[in-house]
Amino acid sequence: MNLKKALIERRSIRRFKQTEVDKKDLVYLVDMARRAPFAANGQQLRYLIVVQPRLVREVFNRTAWAAYVKPRRDPVWGVSSPMAFIAVSAPKYGASQEVNVGAAFQSMSLAAQGIGLGTCWLGAFRKEEVAKILMVPNDRELLYLMAIGYPDETPVSEDIRGDESVKYYLDDNDVLHVPKIRAEDLIEWH
Amino acid sequence: MNLKKALIERRSIRRFKQTEVDKKDLVYLVDMARRAPFAANGQQLRYLIVVQPRLVREVFNRTAWAAYVKPRRDPVWGVSSPMAFIAVSAPKYGASQEVNVGAAFQSMSLAAQGIGLGTCWLGAFRKEEVAKILMVPNDRELLYLMAIGYPDETPVSEDIRGDESVKYYLDDNDVLHVPKIRAEDLIEWH
Repeated sequence: MNLKKALIERRSIRRFKQTEVDKKDLVYLVDMARRAPFAANGQQLRYLIVVQPRLVREVFNRTAWAAYVKPRRDPVWGVSSPMAFIAVSAPKYGASQEVNVGAAFQSMSLAAQGIGLGTCWLGAFRKEEVAKILMVPNDRELLYLMAIGYPDETPVSEDIRGDESVKYYLDDNDVLHVPKIRAEDLIEWH
Repeated sequence: MNLKKALIERRSIRRFKQTEVDKKDLVYLVDMARRAPFAANGQQLRYLIVVQPRLVREVFNRTAWAAYVKPRRDPVWGVSSPMAFIAVSAPKYGASQEVNVGAAFQSMSLAAQGIGLGTCWLGAFRKEEVAKILMVPNDRELLYLMAIGYPDETPVSEDIRGDESVKYYLDDNDVLHVPKIRAEDLIEWH
């Protein structure tokens, strides 16, 4: 896929087809994520790929979705739920891990977009319970989850001014609209 | 450019040609960055594009580069220095800003790669002095700088095992080698 197209068209996906995702495609996502830059080239992040249906469900049950339109964009287990998760762990008390995950997960989302997969980056989940389920060692912590599957919705982005509301919303046709502040209102020249 | 090619070939650049960068290309980088996901779609980041040579130099004088090979990859002003900076600011004490910047800056780096520009993400700079030079208001802070210009070096990445050193190094031909841990050593299956 064309880079610019992926950068423009990637949106968070919260409704997934119940179609299996190939394991080699999940490895590909990590293979692209690992090439992102890291502070001092540290690479302390590790990726826990969750594909066993029982474990996917255990993790899914501990996630929260799309606060502004709750509960209308909560995926339903077995109907619109993700087919896999990739959880990312880092050393506890490590420096720069948040910004490192940001870069790596964005590469992962874009790589997914390029092969037709949808992703939703989740920060709201019961971290300690999920860490226990995935047997994360005591000296590491889970930072984020990436929910993954083939998209079963097509959210649209719309440009807004810097003083307008950034709250996403569902229209009468159940399409999610994501307001994005136009570039000219984000830039200051020096 | 092809997405996968950009994901694989993007490397941090620390030697730049002294060729002017078009302002519309800098706007394009922000236009791609703004489409990254944000926690609760917040979009509190703002981009300060520094292009006036006097100010680029003032900022440049307050940056630190490539700690592992210092000072051999410190750019030299007017010889290999960046032609522009994009500084990113966020509200002080805001939540999730580090991970938000991670995603936005990664989109920016990839977008730059796609149009032949090189970037280096800088976290080591005198933040309060640069904030003063760029007149950042008191309720906001600078988080990172992106140095931008046409690349005048071609760093290479090389796959390593998870137990090898991640320190990048310069070879006898002054080429920077960046070790990246192979995917299989970063993945755990569940």
